[in-house]
Amino acid sequence: MQFNSHMDTALSEARLAAERGEVPVGAAIADAKGRLVAQAGNRMRELKDPTAHAEIAVIRAACDKLKTERLQGFSLYVTLEPCAMCAGAVAAARIARLYYGAADPKSGGVAHGAKVFTHPQCHHVPEIYDGISAEASENLLRQFFRDRRADKAKT
Amino acid sequence: MQFNSHMDTALSEARLAAERGEVPVGAAIADAKGRLVAQAGNRMRELKDPTAHAEIAVIRAACDKLKTERLQGFSLYVTLEPCAMCAGAVAAARIARLYYGAADPKSGGVAHGAKVFTHPQCHHVPEIYDGISAEASENLLRQFFRDRRADKAKT
Repeated sequence: MQFNSHMDTALSEARLAAERGEVPVGAAIADAKGRLVAQAGNRMRELKDPTAHAEIAVIRAACDKLKTERLQGFSLYVTLEPCAMCAGAVAAARIARLYYGAADPKSGGVAHGAKVFTHPQCHHVPEIYDGISAEASENLLRQFFRDRRADKAKT
Repeated sequence: MQFNSHMDTALSEARLAAERGEVPVGAAIADAKGRLVAQAGNRMRELKDPTAHAEIAVIRAACDKLKTERLQGFSLYVTLEPCAMCAGAVAAARIARLYYGAADPKSGGVAHGAKVFTHPQCHHVPEIYDGISAEASENLLRQFFRDRRADKAKT
């Protein structure tokens, strides 16, 4: 199914992020016809930019490519539940549908914490589909933190 | 007083934003010794980037300048209450103190709506000082929207 293929793209971006030493989160954006428009992974460490989460990066990439500030009708796929910052960016960009993988009880801002889309004040609420390829996403994150702990234990 | 001088810098960035046709919001970041490190205004329209709010722009500019992903001990000054996205970015950057001007019941995410810093899950909560130069900030916003309505009425 189409949403699985775009989530696969997001997962491959998460894997590339891990190879760069970043927390493995990846994202993709597709247009209303389901065509892939942009893909990105976390680059906070590399760019020394705390806002360079996969979701922010992929929204900026899609908007830059299409020369638009609004992604009405577009879908965003991300391997992990967005944090409050990224959920706010999804609303600002007017993303129509948000598909995410693993839940993030620690830092998520959609189903947890600030629950950015649940407030009557929120200008724009996307359709939300959670748990898409959640296991693959969780495995990537688990492996990344396991490796990092092992590396720390060695030093 | 020092925080007034940095808020003046933020206000001047808000004025420049208005001149560019952007919603007039400006921001500044100072280091732990009170020295100005970066300043920025809204550039969403110009850059076709829905994430290019003044706060995101100034955090990115400060981190880029200092080659760091964390602004521990730093203060952020912004003329309007940050939205959920920008409040999340303030937490992600570990900003120590947040000074803001006008309250934003419509889009704010600090004292309104998602109230990003009020959740036990929030990793980092800055000291928050609101209402700094609020009247000047409100006047700028009011004038901007008044002018825009007048322009629309003409067409």
